[in-house]
Amino acid sequence: MILCLCPSPAIDVTYNVAAFAVGETTRVRRVTRRPGGKAVNVARVLTALGDHAVVLAPVGGATGEEFRNGLSAFGLPAETVHSGHSTRHTVTVVDAAAGQASVLTEPATIDCWDAVADRFHALLTAAEAVVISGSLPSGAPDDGLATLTLAARAAELPVVVDTSGAALAGALAGKPTVIKPNAAELAEVSGRSDVLAAARELAGFHGVAVVASLGADGLIAVDAAGSWHARPARRLRGNPTGAGDALVAALARGFARGTALCDLLGDAVALSAAAVVQPYAGEVDVAEFDRQRTGVRIEDLEAAR
Amino acid sequence: MILCLCPSPAIDVTYNVAAFAVGETTRVRRVTRRPGGKAVNVARVLTALGDHAVVLAPVGGATGEEFRNGLSAFGLPAETVHSGHSTRHTVTVVDAAAGQASVLTEPATIDCWDAVADRFHALLTAAEAVVISGSLPSGAPDDGLATLTLAARAAELPVVVDTSGAALAGALAGKPTVIKPNAAELAEVSGRSDVLAAARELAGFHGVAVVASLGADGLIAVDAAGSWHARPARRLRGNPTGAGDALVAALARGFARGTALCDLLGDAVALSAAAVVQPYAGEVDVAEFDRQRTGVRIEDLEAAR
Repeated sequence: MILCLCPSPAIDVTYNVAAFAVGETTRVRRVTRRPGGKAVNVARVLTALGDHAVVLAPVGGATGEEFRNGLSAFGLPAETVHSGHSTRHTVTVVDAAAGQASVLTEPATIDCWDAVADRFHALLTAAEAVVISGSLPSGAPDDGLATLTLAARAAELPVVVDTSGAALAGALAGKPTVIKPNAAELAEVSGRSDVLAAARELAGFHGVAVVASLGADGLIAVDAAGSWHARPARRLRGNPTGAGDALVAALARGFARGTALCDLLGDAVALSAAAVVQPYAGEVDVAEFDRQRTGVRIEDLEAAR
Repeated sequence: MILCLCPSPAIDVTYNVAAFAVGETTRVRRVTRRPGGKAVNVARVLTALGDHAVVLAPVGGATGEEFRNGLSAFGLPAETVHSGHSTRHTVTVVDAAAGQASVLTEPATIDCWDAVADRFHALLTAAEAVVISGSLPSGAPDDGLATLTLAARAAELPVVVDTSGAALAGALAGKPTVIKPNAAELAEVSGRSDVLAAARELAGFHGVAVVASLGADGLIAVDAAGSWHARPARRLRGNPTGAGDALVAALARGFARGTALCDLLGDAVALSAAAVVQPYAGEVDVAEFDRQRTGVRIEDLEAAR
């Protein structure tokens, strides 16, 4: 089982509009609501590939109930902890005329971090890998992610962390197996704008692997054994949020099987590409995954050093 | 009691953001949720002025429960009818950097129109005036507003209608006492762009009074007795949605007291101005109302004919 901790779950609301009139009133043509949060997307991708994923999340209020029911409808096993704060929303406005999406994320707040941590510890015995993905809600301690990461590592489990800012800096103190920032998140946490230099510095300093997602340009991966740039066979346009979550899923299932980082980069890029072509985060095109796997180009960056 | 029918209630969500990054991701700094729908705003203004207002609305799901609880927190008596469709949201993104607001309205749907109509009829015996304000939800019959208006008029009650498009055209068939379109809504329903000419035509053809709201420029009012342009003493900047609802409240309380249209225009303009200066629709500054009342300028448009 791969344990997917979702510290800041949400109901992801999508508004399809003909043309978004910013500064005026726009009628929404279609409303879609589904359980969200990056860890949920990761768990859905894992489930689609036949892996056993469990989502652990604090939930509250009517939206918390909707979140639980939504996971159940997805066929995702969920371990939920009751929070006194209602589960938040995110709203994505998909503008057909402009061909773009605007995302509004409500802040997440919980009052039950200790209970989440207790459940996390209890679930470690059944886990083969741990994913911690998403933002740290207010109400959680600053060292919350570090403590959980240390516990999972002490249980000899691989831990994949995908978060940003202070939460990422905090999680690094727990020495996760791998972190997966995008270029902007990597620059923010390292203070360096060069992706490869930043990844090497973080990997060396914290003793973690770093996989930086570069959108259509694939990823840069660094660990103690080397550094690589992996690119998809062909450029695909689509949904970048889902791509990052699929990449995390590939890392988690690879590490759960004991695969070395350098040997799972092909799957990571291919799975990411298979998510890009889907309209919603959390979905992957399994046939596209298989097609992409054979064409990923992996460049050894140590050779050029 | 003034009966305020809210055919399409909503939870009005306000997102305060530092700067709305359209096409990207924006973190919401503050989330406010409150029961909305134009008739709710009207009832709140009436209540603030000491009138007894009752809101009648179909509600469903957890948001329907939130709507009922929110009205209760406002101290507003509510008569709710259970719908199988969840009460919708509207989302207003208030962008501090741009100094503007973008409103997204979800479509309203109900499955309980007949039960709403039954409750409406039962409440007429206690009513001194009726307000019908807001859009007609899908699931309601095309002649729904006309039927209710006819019933209220048959009970010799004044009826104020504030809606638009096909719903306004439908309501006119019921011969309400007064309709309150804005300039755009009036142009849409009449096919004429000149406000005074459009108002005179509709008033003459349907035998109704027409009060057209003109924002900072006040209102134009037409009934069988004459036509007038009423303007505030001074221009105020602020929230135009709340201003229209306050204007409806002024019409309803005036007609409930048997006041002639020409004698309530001062209150209508002043109450509208007292709403403009408030940040949220449904709130009025009672002191500003008293200040504005003395300065409203009323021009008799018949004299110039």
